[in-house]
Amino acid sequence: MTLSFTLLGEDGAARAGMMHTAHGDVPTPTFMAVGTAGTVKAMTADAVRATGANIVLGNTYHLMLRPTPERVARLGGLHKMMDWPGPILTDSGGFQIMSLAKLRKMDETGVTFRSHLDGSAHHLSPERSMEIQHLLDATITMVLDECTKFPATHEEAAISMRLSTRWARRSRAAFIPRLGYGQFGIVQGSVYEDLRAESAAALAALDFEGYAVGGLAVGEGQAMMNAVLDYTTPMLPKHKPRYLMGVGTPDDLLGAVARGVDMFDCVMPTRAGRTARGFTSAGVFNLRNARFIDDGTALDPACCCLCCTRHTRAYLHHLFRAEEMLGPMLLTIHNLTYYQSLMQGARAAILAGDYAAYCDRTRAGWESRA
Amino acid sequence: MTLSFTLLGEDGAARAGMMHTAHGDVPTPTFMAVGTAGTVKAMTADAVRATGANIVLGNTYHLMLRPTPERVARLGGLHKMMDWPGPILTDSGGFQIMSLAKLRKMDETGVTFRSHLDGSAHHLSPERSMEIQHLLDATITMVLDECTKFPATHEEAAISMRLSTRWARRSRAAFIPRLGYGQFGIVQGSVYEDLRAESAAALAALDFEGYAVGGLAVGEGQAMMNAVLDYTTPMLPKHKPRYLMGVGTPDDLLGAVARGVDMFDCVMPTRAGRTARGFTSAGVFNLRNARFIDDGTALDPACCCLCCTRHTRAYLHHLFRAEEMLGPMLLTIHNLTYYQSLMQGARAAILAGDYAAYCDRTRAGWESRA
Repeated sequence: MTLSFTLLGEDGAARAGMMHTAHGDVPTPTFMAVGTAGTVKAMTADAVRATGANIVLGNTYHLMLRPTPERVARLGGLHKMMDWPGPILTDSGGFQIMSLAKLRKMDETGVTFRSHLDGSAHHLSPERSMEIQHLLDATITMVLDECTKFPATHEEAAISMRLSTRWARRSRAAFIPRLGYGQFGIVQGSVYEDLRAESAAALAALDFEGYAVGGLAVGEGQAMMNAVLDYTTPMLPKHKPRYLMGVGTPDDLLGAVARGVDMFDCVMPTRAGRTARGFTSAGVFNLRNARFIDDGTALDPACCCLCCTRHTRAYLHHLFRAEEMLGPMLLTIHNLTYYQSLMQGARAAILAGDYAAYCDRTRAGWESRA
Repeated sequence: MTLSFTLLGEDGAARAGMMHTAHGDVPTPTFMAVGTAGTVKAMTADAVRATGANIVLGNTYHLMLRPTPERVARLGGLHKMMDWPGPILTDSGGFQIMSLAKLRKMDETGVTFRSHLDGSAHHLSPERSMEIQHLLDATITMVLDECTKFPATHEEAAISMRLSTRWARRSRAAFIPRLGYGQFGIVQGSVYEDLRAESAAALAALDFEGYAVGGLAVGEGQAMMNAVLDYTTPMLPKHKPRYLMGVGTPDDLLGAVARGVDMFDCVMPTRAGRTARGFTSAGVFNLRNARFIDDGTALDPACCCLCCTRHTRAYLHHLFRAEEMLGPMLLTIHNLTYYQSLMQGARAAILAGDYAAYCDRTRAGWESRA
């Protein structure tokens, strides 16, 4: 049997579940740390595990250019290469070709582009994207799609979504089902309910192991994102995992979980950790700020991570001022731990039928800082 | 009782011992990882512990400028600040003022200089250096000395050494003895046996808890360094620990241990780790080299560190090519583990009366790579 999902509890539209994969179970809702080039930046795999992470994400675009999927396969796959035997989801490569690559050109066959590293020419079709993700040994393979730009007219969004639908069909045909592995379709349609419905129905007919909502967090703002989720998640099969791609802030996560999303990924906690921004139960802190220079308290006294149990805000401030690598290392550990604990708390609250109160308490905490 | 030392075994001039300190015992010979600004670069304190390290070094010059010794003291001392409850040795600050600071001027009172960070003016006297190291809560305090430049005439070396001797006397007077804490004198005299003897005798009269050999590894080359050690270490009190400052390569360490040195520090394993150079039982590897791109073996199959037991040379190569922080992190873990295991092997061999053969086997291993 391919990857499966058990819905364990609901609280309003919010869901708690368990995803069963070839590389282990994943309690949901869950946040996937981003391991772009075969490493979660500034983290050993042991440190990632210690944050409570159950699944990580790898980027097909980066890995296809370097070290190349064939090389990763020769090294035993991405799990072995990066010392992460747990589940790994890989994206299709399409999103980052459009944001990073040079001279990119899209047509019905796929995307032609030049590498941002050395200018070499490449072509990514739905079939090649599936092959790459197979070579990487991805637990969860994403279909190749076009992330519709924002804003887009109804006509633009329809044309883009229908191309993604055709690519999803080809991606599904090229996917090789294996025990505990799965493939997710990606719903597009921009901010148009009728297009989201058309996309969701077409993908549901392909019977994917899970469904992602794409084309959000691209500039539309949190209110519009939530409005789209309000009508889109009910269009998705209830007993399959739902993944909101590239989202987001802690508050975004709470709002999307409330609307029935099970999985997230975002560079925010890792990138913020490298730039001195810490997410805590009392809001966001910039550790470079001079007010922390003599602050002998833990970054987040409510957090059980290595950073918070062993060090002070003053030490973190010192490390960032001195440009020591340990600053990004410790703050990434903390931020990922914070995201994981946020999702663990959400799951427990959903199972207890207490999710709305959990969100209220958590948001009140973030505001307490002021 | 202040810091003490038990000589447990000798093999020729090589020694195995145990240093007893307020912050734990240190088996010798030992290598001290350099934690310049209150962090061993690219390492969590847990990772430093996992290398087998028993003692680390902090740099007075860096810490006096940032975060300042008064601030470190308010945070509970350097041990607490950097999560290293074990022994810490701090240098006096003098060496790095001469190599890093701007507009430095030395006279009998001490050194006046401007910070390389912000140009602010500072004065470091023997008394202030002792006060700073006290504020940092250094387990081992070093006297303030002048590291005589190389080459130096006999007259220059004599003048410099005698200034260091007067400063050593003032440093000793300013040191506050505490249970399990100690202070080391530093023998100078460049490459002149009579001056080394004069320095050693003057320092022995001050009854330090340990003795360092300074003014070596400053350009004189390994052969001359060993020649100086050949006559200098016998001038030092037998039942006190002996520390060769700022040394060195694995081969330097083997040679100096053979000549009766017990303690070392050097930025080499950490700095090399950040620049893709790995020290192994089969010699030095540059992991950026293209020949590692498909090398699926461990960096050092004989090593038990996280880097060698979980990852391949190909992965390290990828991480350095992709400029991922995990490359420096893993290679620093490995290099420090290698230095620790080299010292552990030396100690076991000395206790077994087998040190010469240990050096032969180890050096043959380094050459096996070719």
